[in-house]
Amino acid sequence: MDTITSIKGETGRDARRRIRAGGFRKPTAGMAPGYVQGNLAILPKEFAADFTRFCMLNPKPCPLLGQSEPGDWRLPMLGEDLDIRTDIPRYRVWKKGELIEEVDDLKKVWRDDLVSFVLGCSFSFEETLIDNGLEIRHQSCDVNVPMYRTNIECTPAGPFHGPMVVSMRPFKPADAIRAVQVTTRFPSVHGAPVHLGKPEMIGIKDIAKPDYGDAVPVRDDELPVFWACGVTPQSVVATVKPEFCITHAPGYMLVTDLLNSQLAVL
Amino acid sequence: MDTITSIKGETGRDARRRIRAGGFRKPTAGMAPGYVQGNLAILPKEFAADFTRFCMLNPKPCPLLGQSEPGDWRLPMLGEDLDIRTDIPRYRVWKKGELIEEVDDLKKVWRDDLVSFVLGCSFSFEETLIDNGLEIRHQSCDVNVPMYRTNIECTPAGPFHGPMVVSMRPFKPADAIRAVQVTTRFPSVHGAPVHLGKPEMIGIKDIAKPDYGDAVPVRDDELPVFWACGVTPQSVVATVKPEFCITHAPGYMLVTDLLNSQLAVL
Repeated sequence: MDTITSIKGETGRDARRRIRAGGFRKPTAGMAPGYVQGNLAILPKEFAADFTRFCMLNPKPCPLLGQSEPGDWRLPMLGEDLDIRTDIPRYRVWKKGELIEEVDDLKKVWRDDLVSFVLGCSFSFEETLIDNGLEIRHQSCDVNVPMYRTNIECTPAGPFHGPMVVSMRPFKPADAIRAVQVTTRFPSVHGAPVHLGKPEMIGIKDIAKPDYGDAVPVRDDELPVFWACGVTPQSVVATVKPEFCITHAPGYMLVTDLLNSQLAVL
Repeated sequence: MDTITSIKGETGRDARRRIRAGGFRKPTAGMAPGYVQGNLAILPKEFAADFTRFCMLNPKPCPLLGQSEPGDWRLPMLGEDLDIRTDIPRYRVWKKGELIEEVDDLKKVWRDDLVSFVLGCSFSFEETLIDNGLEIRHQSCDVNVPMYRTNIECTPAGPFHGPMVVSMRPFKPADAIRAVQVTTRFPSVHGAPVHLGKPEMIGIKDIAKPDYGDAVPVRDDELPVFWACGVTPQSVVATVKPEFCITHAPGYMLVTDLLNSQLAVL
């Protein structure tokens, strides 16, 4: 069993090879530092056009980094040797909106009509926030980021619709301003916050009770800062209840060959 | 008497000529739209090195746009024909920290040892905020921007020291995020906010009682957003009480040949 997450100098390709070899079955946070990790959604091709359009219409929660041809398990724009069936340490298989099983690879469940979508995730901008000397509270607390369903409706496309989910990180005001500046540079991984302070304005009744993930303390001298979250597309797909669907297991992401620094627009 | 503030197509040079001709004696907000306006501080040369250093150490409240040679009334970096003795509609003359008189030009009080300093002002970024569809509350209320002394100490230089003064504009959270992005592009005119929400954290006891300017309403769904303010150097100079000093009268600024768009770093 491969239990080492962070290996100095490891590339995205190295990390995928470790996963593909079958030894590594842990969350990917900390693997291949500097490389972009992504959320996965796999849908039958009859949903593909609408889902692509949904992502285009809602780029902050659904920043599309890559998309496969129907039936093709490759995503060469994200990694030359990438095989989406084997390169993620844990997958979830859904039927009609219900979680059927968690699997280590997709070889037994793969179908020729499946289209893979990879969406940017907040790991990329969190790395840059840390590089800027900011504290990421849920990392300090060693828990999952707190996430909340909001009253902000996504722009619908075909059957896909639903509220935006946001993640929350507390910062002192001057650090919140810096966090806006830093994350603005990364539009393909959720970009700038969508809201800060005043959680009630976006339909969050109790900041201590996230809908997903874990609560973290928000101190008196801090503001909660909210970013559009990659859980949004999963929540939206769950609402549509497609007959078949695959996602990554939360925290078990796709490690790509892209560098976080390459995603910075400035 | 020249009573028209805003003339379509007027340049900075046109505006200064109107002022120099003696007819225009009103606040300059709205003159020569698109052109940079600046704060003025004139000091005897024995203070010049320390004041320059103070500005360099405190670039957010004191963004230095231009500086003259001792005794020279020209500032060619801000306007080829610029004459600092005549090109501002109203000046204040100070002795030992006390306001002695307001004058329309400096011809009678000019001295060969005077050094002029022009500092960026918030008019430049307010224009860009409006271009981005944001409402500037004090403009809607037709009053002066509210300004507050904070508990943030400037970095001292020679005799110059004192607290940072900030200006406040209220915005809804999403607009506050946009305002951070927009003003970040303008570091030479105060740049990004220094604080938002939680006025008590920077020593502001009552947002309804500004130390300078006028109070404006902050609604329940808004956050007060605070920028470093060009009143800071005036407040600092007042503390030092130099034997002689000249400033512009509040709101009666220097109109330059620089375009606001030229100040954007991105």
